[in-house]
Amino acid sequence: MLNFEFKNPTKILFGKGEIAKISNEIPKDAKILMIYGGGSIKKNGVYDQVKEALKDHNLHEFGGVPANPEYEVLVNALSFIKEKNINYLLAVGGGSVIDGVKFLSAAANYEGEPWEILTKPVRTFEGEGMPFGTILTLPATGSEMNSGYVISRRETNEKLSSGGPGLFPQFSVLDPEVIRSIPKNQIANGIADAYTHVLEQYMTSPSSADLQERIAESILISLQNAAPKVMSDDFDYDAAGNFMWCCTMALNGLIQKGVITDWAVHAMGHELTAYYGIDHARTLAVVAPSHYRYNFDTKKGKLSQYAERVWGITEGSTEEKAEQAIVKLEEFFHSLQIQTKLSDYTQDFAGTAERVEKAFTERNWLGLGENKNLTPQDAFKIVEMSY
Amino acid sequence: MLNFEFKNPTKILFGKGEIAKISNEIPKDAKILMIYGGGSIKKNGVYDQVKEALKDHNLHEFGGVPANPEYEVLVNALSFIKEKNINYLLAVGGGSVIDGVKFLSAAANYEGEPWEILTKPVRTFEGEGMPFGTILTLPATGSEMNSGYVISRRETNEKLSSGGPGLFPQFSVLDPEVIRSIPKNQIANGIADAYTHVLEQYMTSPSSADLQERIAESILISLQNAAPKVMSDDFDYDAAGNFMWCCTMALNGLIQKGVITDWAVHAMGHELTAYYGIDHARTLAVVAPSHYRYNFDTKKGKLSQYAERVWGITEGSTEEKAEQAIVKLEEFFHSLQIQTKLSDYTQDFAGTAERVEKAFTERNWLGLGENKNLTPQDAFKIVEMSY
Repeated sequence: MLNFEFKNPTKILFGKGEIAKISNEIPKDAKILMIYGGGSIKKNGVYDQVKEALKDHNLHEFGGVPANPEYEVLVNALSFIKEKNINYLLAVGGGSVIDGVKFLSAAANYEGEPWEILTKPVRTFEGEGMPFGTILTLPATGSEMNSGYVISRRETNEKLSSGGPGLFPQFSVLDPEVIRSIPKNQIANGIADAYTHVLEQYMTSPSSADLQERIAESILISLQNAAPKVMSDDFDYDAAGNFMWCCTMALNGLIQKGVITDWAVHAMGHELTAYYGIDHARTLAVVAPSHYRYNFDTKKGKLSQYAERVWGITEGSTEEKAEQAIVKLEEFFHSLQIQTKLSDYTQDFAGTAERVEKAFTERNWLGLGENKNLTPQDAFKIVEMSY
Repeated sequence: MLNFEFKNPTKILFGKGEIAKISNEIPKDAKILMIYGGGSIKKNGVYDQVKEALKDHNLHEFGGVPANPEYEVLVNALSFIKEKNINYLLAVGGGSVIDGVKFLSAAANYEGEPWEILTKPVRTFEGEGMPFGTILTLPATGSEMNSGYVISRRETNEKLSSGGPGLFPQFSVLDPEVIRSIPKNQIANGIADAYTHVLEQYMTSPSSADLQERIAESILISLQNAAPKVMSDDFDYDAAGNFMWCCTMALNGLIQKGVITDWAVHAMGHELTAYYGIDHARTLAVVAPSHYRYNFDTKKGKLSQYAERVWGITEGSTEEKAEQAIVKLEEFFHSLQIQTKLSDYTQDFAGTAERVEKAFTERNWLGLGENKNLTPQDAFKIVEMSY
């Protein structure tokens, strides 16, 4: 078990009707900017709930933050924040909106060109950001209970991540009722995203961190249990609640403590989103099975444990169970109507592996995977296997 | 799944050598009071590590806080805090020392008679306590990552609990190396204490909080796995680490969220400690099996699930699995050399059930158990079953 530090100060308000409580979480004299995305919150009732909860607060609005939050849009929001002397941010949306607000939280208290926060060597914001809370409307990324974020910049075709201990939300509201109105393909993305977040922190070389591994397996099983219920047309509040809490627990820092983590699937998946605009979660489903097959020797112990504990497969050798584990993973993605081959998403995939290899080479990667020993050439082979 | 709020701002520093880092966690200009118990920290090297880490800080000391931290001793510490203008507390010890420091944290910022903090109707301290950190030397109670505490007052034979959102440790150091020098009977107590903490939050009527239940089961299994290794004479760092982290995770608030909780075993167990001085953890092992047998109809669903998921018992009816679950629980306590009948600890047990019934009646209990419907007469029968 590796040494670790863990601190997560975000206050979670979980359950039906909890949005009404945010008036107690934000100072009465705050100048608040509510930030949201494409406007779905005006259809599902969340916008009205927020307005009602904050009717005695000083509340401004900024809508239109897109998926894969775009730097250019956020810079406009930043101008608004400075112009209106905003001192509290409220993200109302999914991971993209929350990520955008984290960047704004850092940028509002940063002297200099905001893009530097993302491009400086360390890419970590050490200071205290502008305080902010979140109201989650799309469970998936876990951004509502961590301090990391990813920002895209179309003009340079970059997608960069950052974060820092001063960028945790002060509070996050998780009301499973929001899941009623989410389109099924986005629910499927959320499940696949959270599931892969767990895998990135779990499907590594064997570790001695017994409890963390078991909690990771708990999240995987619970997501599997919730999946058919939240994908069904009948709304199931308890299943929605489990799904929502699993997404948060998948990436709030807890299961990564004391273990090595991988994140190579995300690194390769980000490229596929950049090239073809494939939904983030679906790129993970494309890359993960190939990644596990390519790194079979390193990961077969954990794959076999996953087969046993998560899927109940007790027959066969370690290798046989590990192979079945990857098939089970693919079948799980397919059960969500998520395809697992690049050719399922684009016919224009020729040269993708070369492009990923080149991109990783140019960025001077120190090595991918939990042992930091995968080269851009390894990435070439993994991506090629995923065609 | 019930609505819940969750916030736990304590920073955990986990692993070998982490004590050295506390100098970064405490302000340089703080006037610190290090508080400890009977002096075992001077034998196991922890005292020296703390002194070394804080050699450039202004550090005072107060030793001699006993198990079941005693009000009278703590009032002396409070006088010392006021006299020396202490503004930061450092607990170095097990749950008793940490609980005592939480009380001091509240009392230092409280105007009026300190005992009021524990006896006022709500028994919750709403303010901010004096900031404090902890260095855990005995894994068991989970006090290092929550905001509750229990204080005893010998002159009135009272044992009262309190807590509040301003009473979380700012940081807690969990170095598994401390387990090397803990006597085996105290390790056994720690395992049984943490295990029963999980049961109090899990062994209730069935719930729909799938993830929380699975995390609770993960802690139980992981404690079971670690138990024989940490009870062995050969020190196993990884097992010690898992044991330590399980104890913290058992009572840091996470698994109680969204579910109903019981805590009747603790309520009855506290009485046995008060009457006979039996170690807290051992009183839980005495009461729990009888409590589950007495409330079999309410709890058999969860007992059966526990049998299946935690002990791998898949044969038999719900009732049969539930009965086997209680036997497995007793066997687990026995494997720790912890006996599960009151008569194993005292021959002077006649009248205990009457005494518990009377005590509960006098205290106007609103009802014990997860459904708050157990009467003092029920407690009589449960305690009688545990003779």
